[in-house]
Amino acid sequence: MTRPVRIALDAMGGDHGPAVVIPGAAISLHRHPDSTFVIFGNQDQCLPVLDQHPKLKAVTTFHHTEVAVRMDDKPSQALRQGRRVSSMWRAIEAVKRGEADVAVSAGNTGALMAMAKFCLRTMAHVDRPAIAAIWPTTRGESIVLDVGATIGADARHLIDMAVMGSAMARIVFDIDRPTVGLLNVGVEEIKGVEEVKSAGRMLREQDFPHMNYAGFVEGDDIGKGSVDVVVTEGFAGNIALKTAEGTAKQIASYLRSAMSRTLMAKIGYLFAKSAFDSLRDKMDPRKVNGGVFLGLDGIVIKSHGGTDPTGLAAAVDLGYDMVKHDLLAKIRESLEASIPAAAAGPPGEETHA
Amino acid sequence: MTRPVRIALDAMGGDHGPAVVIPGAAISLHRHPDSTFVIFGNQDQCLPVLDQHPKLKAVTTFHHTEVAVRMDDKPSQALRQGRRVSSMWRAIEAVKRGEADVAVSAGNTGALMAMAKFCLRTMAHVDRPAIAAIWPTTRGESIVLDVGATIGADARHLIDMAVMGSAMARIVFDIDRPTVGLLNVGVEEIKGVEEVKSAGRMLREQDFPHMNYAGFVEGDDIGKGSVDVVVTEGFAGNIALKTAEGTAKQIASYLRSAMSRTLMAKIGYLFAKSAFDSLRDKMDPRKVNGGVFLGLDGIVIKSHGGTDPTGLAAAVDLGYDMVKHDLLAKIRESLEASIPAAAAGPPGEETHA
Repeated sequence: MTRPVRIALDAMGGDHGPAVVIPGAAISLHRHPDSTFVIFGNQDQCLPVLDQHPKLKAVTTFHHTEVAVRMDDKPSQALRQGRRVSSMWRAIEAVKRGEADVAVSAGNTGALMAMAKFCLRTMAHVDRPAIAAIWPTTRGESIVLDVGATIGADARHLIDMAVMGSAMARIVFDIDRPTVGLLNVGVEEIKGVEEVKSAGRMLREQDFPHMNYAGFVEGDDIGKGSVDVVVTEGFAGNIALKTAEGTAKQIASYLRSAMSRTLMAKIGYLFAKSAFDSLRDKMDPRKVNGGVFLGLDGIVIKSHGGTDPTGLAAAVDLGYDMVKHDLLAKIRESLEASIPAAAAGPPGEETHA
Repeated sequence: MTRPVRIALDAMGGDHGPAVVIPGAAISLHRHPDSTFVIFGNQDQCLPVLDQHPKLKAVTTFHHTEVAVRMDDKPSQALRQGRRVSSMWRAIEAVKRGEADVAVSAGNTGALMAMAKFCLRTMAHVDRPAIAAIWPTTRGESIVLDVGATIGADARHLIDMAVMGSAMARIVFDIDRPTVGLLNVGVEEIKGVEEVKSAGRMLREQDFPHMNYAGFVEGDDIGKGSVDVVVTEGFAGNIALKTAEGTAKQIASYLRSAMSRTLMAKIGYLFAKSAFDSLRDKMDPRKVNGGVFLGLDGIVIKSHGGTDPTGLAAAVDLGYDMVKHDLLAKIRESLEASIPAAAAGPPGEETHA
């Protein structure tokens, strides 16, 4: 028998805290009965909810914590007040201590990343972590990173992200050599920032065993699913992610208002209701909830703060998959294969045909 | 009687050249009978199309050109081969010489910007130009800039863009003090890149007469229409624009496939057809076609290359409005009011509560 996947939960994170986190974990447990849980949170708020989920309770170790990081705490403030004592810190620390395989939190991203970096540290050969999001596309799903861990990226960091993102893609999409694109403002080689061009040259020249470098991609390639993994620095990645979310909401609102404007439209809506339901399902952000922190010496999953139990369960599922398919080992293996590239000298000084 | 608005057209630009540009101009002329045109292009291709539009022909001066900039020419190549002789250059030059009030081209953006910079030069006090796009939002429309003229922006350039974008917004939205937001990765003051934070401080402290600075906005605020003018540097702005276009196409494709999957859905579609038509109309990118080049000593409008006559007409209309409401004078007036800020010293060295 294989050993269980041990999931540490910050029950106090997110807009609704334990009322969403605990039922969400129960849903995920139902799908993955070989999970166990270590839950950190305020006992007065958590235990009554846990009592309503006896199956979850049976596989949970609960730890009371007094401090909860707030959604609007600055990272420095969260570290100062929440280090060692908050539910968020304790969940991450459980991974550090080897008491859990993954930490999941719906708490504030900045604080979670600051604590995760402080507690887990970055992997060998990785300077900076990244947050990877799963992005629904016309062809299925793609992985986009970095969606907001750090601002700015040099060529080496972009390559690290390509390596880490494709390790994650091997698990999520179950393929051996995912295609990887660098996000840029044009597909011609001449365009874009120096770091992106330089990373592109290195990726093209070096044959990484576990990825298939496809060149530059533009913003509209993300939704098309042109590549499995889209790599960009955190400022542009975060803006792309939020712009896409905003556009999806905007179109949903157009659609709602169009379908309620006339009697004919309302009748049409009733006939096509199941089609609309499947569309809503397709656009449901809860289905792909969960950002994966990459580049740390441990796995941490960030759930959307405003999600419901279904969304939270998706984040826990994602964490489960990352553990089950050994994300960290896959990243390390790919990083080691990429090290010769780093030793080859500054790419900006090379010349190419 | 007021004098006509004189529009210079690059008839060879875009995927379809004169077959789209000339009929597009005819549509716009119908809406604005006080326009006149100077059209540059190959006579064998243009004159037969022009003959089909006698009203347009009656107010057009036509100039034959031998060279057409190709959609995939690099800017340097376009300048080398097309300077002084291409239809694109000649249309811009007509503005420079005072023979036209605005140049409109559906040709390649990089070449058009390179030629426009070379021929028209930037305005006094402006270092770098920007491209402003009109972005449909839930509340109407907003202006977003820069969507790809230059990569990277310091605080001063961001402020210039805020000033230029709000001058354009005064015309497009007919309001005296448009709201302006700086695109960032979070609304808290601590987040984001140094240049954006520094520009934010300057905009907050100085009371610009023709804008209402509203602080940082995030990617999802664009579609919400949270502010009239969204300011960002060209890399992030281009990625945001193309990501939004990609997301809109992606959802349209989900919708089409949902509505054709079952008989019930097809019947529903028929009932709701006029609602779907109004939705399509709302999402129609041709309606808001036209990027405005800001910061140059002359007005240049870029139309989408792949558009049809309806879309091209929207770009010509936009140029007409910019001339009619004296965009350049409004920008100069606002820039002059902003100059004290530039003289106040580097903003990064100030401290604030």
